[in-house]
Amino acid sequence: MITSLPHGPISSTDLAQATEAMRAAGPLVQYLTNIVAANTTANVLLAAGASPAVIDNPREAADFAGIASGVAVNLGTPYEHTVAAMREAVRGAHAAGTPWVLDPVAAGGPGWRTEVARDLVAQSPAVVRGNASEIMGLAGGAGGRGVDSTAASDEALDAAVRMAREYGVVVAISGATDVVVARDESADAGEARMHVVRADNGVPTLTRVIGTGCALGALMAAYASVVHPLLGALGATTHLNVAGEIAAENAPGPGSFAVALLDALDSVSPADIERRARIEATTVPA
Amino acid sequence: MITSLPHGPISSTDLAQATEAMRAAGPLVQYLTNIVAANTTANVLLAAGASPAVIDNPREAADFAGIASGVAVNLGTPYEHTVAAMREAVRGAHAAGTPWVLDPVAAGGPGWRTEVARDLVAQSPAVVRGNASEIMGLAGGAGGRGVDSTAASDEALDAAVRMAREYGVVVAISGATDVVVARDESADAGEARMHVVRADNGVPTLTRVIGTGCALGALMAAYASVVHPLLGALGATTHLNVAGEIAAENAPGPGSFAVALLDALDSVSPADIERRARIEATTVPA
Amino acid sequence: MITSLPHGPISSTDLAQATEAMRAAGPLVQYLTNIVAANTTANVLLAAGASPAVIDNPREAADFAGIASGVAVNLGTPYEHTVAAMREAVRGAHAAGTPWVLDPVAAGGPGWRTEVARDLVAQSPAVVRGNASEIMGLAGGAGGRGVDSTAASDEALDAAVRMAREYGVVVAISGATDVVVARDESADAGEARMHVVRADNGVPTLTRVIGTGCALGALMAAYASVVHPLLGALGATTHLNVAGEIAAENAPGPGSFAVALLDALDSVSPADIERRARIEATTVPA
Repeated sequence: MITSLPHGPISSTDLAQATEAMRAAGPLVQYLTNIVAANTTANVLLAAGASPAVIDNPREAADFAGIASGVAVNLGTPYEHTVAAMREAVRGAHAAGTPWVLDPVAAGGPGWRTEVARDLVAQSPAVVRGNASEIMGLAGGAGGRGVDSTAASDEALDAAVRMAREYGVVVAISGATDVVVARDESADAGEARMHVVRADNGVPTLTRVIGTGCALGALMAAYASVVHPLLGALGATTHLNVAGEIAAENAPGPGSFAVALLDALDSVSPADIERRARIEATTVPA
Repeated sequence: MITSLPHGPISSTDLAQATEAMRAAGPLVQYLTNIVAANTTANVLLAAGASPAVIDNPREAADFAGIASGVAVNLGTPYEHTVAAMREAVRGAHAAGTPWVLDPVAAGGPGWRTEVARDLVAQSPAVVRGNASEIMGLAGGAGGRGVDSTAASDEALDAAVRMAREYGVVVAISGATDVVVARDESADAGEARMHVVRADNGVPTLTRVIGTGCALGALMAAYASVVHPLLGALGATTHLNVAGEIAAENAPGPGSFAVALLDALDSVSPADIERRARIEATTVPA
Repeated sequence: MITSLPHGPISSTDLAQATEAMRAAGPLVQYLTNIVAANTTANVLLAAGASPAVIDNPREAADFAGIASGVAVNLGTPYEHTVAAMREAVRGAHAAGTPWVLDPVAAGGPGWRTEVARDLVAQSPAVVRGNASEIMGLAGGAGGRGVDSTAASDEALDAAVRMAREYGVVVAISGATDVVVARDESADAGEARMHVVRADNGVPTLTRVIGTGCALGALMAAYASVVHPLLGALGATTHLNVAGEIAAENAPGPGSFAVALLDALDSVSPADIERRARIEATTVPA
């Protein structure tokens, strides 16, 4: 159920309602991911209110994408057989109208995954999520070292706008500030604009727990199954980041933070999200 | 060492003794599982008192099944190479008399895994463990969506009885109530009966932590290496579920629950299990 | 930056300085590992101060080893495609002068991995890390059961000395006492000696959490990227073990211990390491 965007700029009330809608739906998210984040991603989805399923072999991936509410494809540790499954999952999602999210981990770096990611981005993902280096690398700019971004989110804004325009996708740049870019579909044809929404929640410790970024991509697929992908990308980001803020309040280190993060993903209320969300919505020329 | 069942209906004392025997043996469990639950399964086995080893390549799986005390095969994320390894592990377990457990994740749903699961169930597992949807799907009924059961355990009772009769396996249906079904080997030939034992421990939060079901299959392999598979399936279920009850007493959310669950798997005493176990043993016509 | 060893026997001050240097560098560690420990290894590296990246496909592994600060190869769950990637990573590390660590999990047991491990050990790893059974198995002695060592570290001393002499590698035997063996490069040619350093930190609960040994291999790669491999192996071991001691002080069971371990890997100071480290440096004839 892809709904349209609310009129006017996205507000924190919209994000709170998105969380409420996602939890009410309890969407089944099929994700194909790396061996490092597979466990964390499942626990994040469960804690947030969604239902995880990894179906990542080429024989079953397409069929399952027709049953799933949303699909997430993450290129962290690609193998021949899982990349084949990713292509099948995307084909199945496409055929069934299931929204899917692409997480082009380390794109722009080593050759193969960048090719795979560029091939996939052309197949209508609802959202592409990555850090600044990955978004720039995927769009053709210089990549970073591995999975860590060496650039700030706003440095990838041009690349994101280009990608959003060319492929019609929502682009979510994760970083100290998260930036989400999407075409303004309500704009007059004569003056095409882009939504650029900055989200400023989150704590640095999120980068000290493996898999939170990968899990965010899967959580976006959960959200994008019930709301517009722009709102979904922002809703998932803010759900995770506000939970991170709550978790950091009582966690002395990265181990206890990871535990508290799951607790907070579960316990955070729409009202908490509405009160804590710090987003700023603007538009730029497309 | 597969022992026979105690005379009379299984009691909570039998379960407590099974836990004691399993911990005394510290069985080496070879498991072949999915990329999501591999880590959780190892930590559950270690906390419970067993020793985990994942040997899931086709070159080594059969030989290792001859060294292992028990083997668990889980179809969560099957690939060509791991399914080949599963067939080898089962062959090796068969040849060496090592008890093995089949966890037919999402059977009845997508096609390939259901075929693989049906092929494996014919190769004398000691225990088949799944939720109601999976047991019905494996037995030929309608399957559920992914790994979540959409049916209550008792709905799968007919399917479980059929499977237990046809293949001589113990069938463990996991759910809000756990139901374990096994042929009554002591019955007169003239009047074949089935044991049906319902176990009512456990808390809903167990379903909010990924991998607890998959880990339970592996824990059943640990138990089935020291006691009769019916007692093993029940003993493992009750060990996990009572630990879950203890964990839930002080855990505010799914993250802290997962941590407390491992602590409780370790600290729960046979006396705790005896006192807390809620089981009801009956028989039905086979 | 492989530095030379300090003059005189390694002291706890050297270890504290190694931790400081590793954290200052924040080395990028490429590791190729098993599906069980992949997540834990990443979290251990992040908590300790390094940056993890799993690039374990044959197309990208060699190139990435040229970018990484250190590489770790772990044979826990080898598959055809990941072993091919390991060979590529080692080739790339070799070509780029990137120090790499070999963790020959369960070597000496099932046939294939022992062959692979013996082939890899000949390709100049900076460090080989294993338990006593694995080191003996790799060197040609009898192996243990799976991943658990059935022997004490000192039983593997002869095998370690032989391996250090033959291949010029540092050999780290993990156990209740950790023993690290390396050629004394400062010795006169006429009288070849081996460093044998025993480290006596650590707590038994470390063996109740899956992946701590595998993570240690990756942490050694982080350290070996900034200090001499002998000091790196000892520094990583002591960082992990002292964190384990701190964690054990407040953790009632293996679940909470695993959480506290990550917190302590992050919070432990070089001064803590200097004060707590219990090492004894000797030499033996080579």
